[in-house]
Amino acid sequence: MNAPQAHGKFITSDRVQGTDVYSASERERIGEIHNLVIDKVSGNVAYADMTFGGFLGLGEGHYPIPWQALKYDTQLDGYVTGITERQLKRAPESGPPDQVDRAFEERLHKHYGIPGYWGYI
Amino acid sequence: MNAPQAHGKFITSDRVQGTDVYSASERERIGEIHNLVIDKVSGNVAYADMTFGGFLGLGEGHYPIPWQALKYDTQLDGYVTGITERQLKRAPESGPPDQVDRAFEERLHKHYGIPGYWGYI
Repeated sequence: MNAPQAHGKFITSDRVQGTDVYSASERERIGEIHNLVIDKVSGNVAYADMTFGGFLGLGEGHYPIPWQALKYDTQLDGYVTGITERQLKRAPESGPPDQVDRAFEERLHKHYGIPGYWGYI
Repeated sequence: MNAPQAHGKFITSDRVQGTDVYSASERERIGEIHNLVIDKVSGNVAYADMTFGGFLGLGEGHYPIPWQALKYDTQLDGYVTGITERQLKRAPESGPPDQVDRAFEERLHKHYGIPGYWGYI
């Protein structure tokens, strides 16, 4: 997350929840971050649980997005992602984001072309 | 966080916020987790921002507690910490937990005897 130093190196979870997400290509709002999904043992944020609220025809479901796929943009006051509409529509489906297993995680990260937060895949 | 596998390896940020914290020695409720403080770049949970609400005579302030000092206990349905009342009362004071600097972090981790999440200190 490349927020400038002036804004501090930290952000609190309640400030991330509800923050808008924009496409890197069009700078259009595509959804928002509903929640952060945290690996209990390592304390790493594994995913942002995104909701699209009907944007992109993606319905009301929850989509786990790797944290490393999101960058904070101070001008937009939201996160920008290079993940495309095409990728989102073809993303592997999950149950509740806090109950995914490693096999699903591997599919998800490969789909988005993002290294796993647990090491490179 | 040593929650059993049956509860999954993940937890969502909104479930952590507001969760009670108990002392390891007496198993008494000493406060609650108000927020998670996240390192933007690494995506690591750096701290839990705890509030004590008058417990321990600590007033209404916010106290950053290293995430690694908290373990989830399924029987208590809360987090247990080995941090003592004495340590809390003598903890270095912070401004807003999302604006602490590395010098403060080093003092804080040394105070609690917890390795820094950025590497050993």
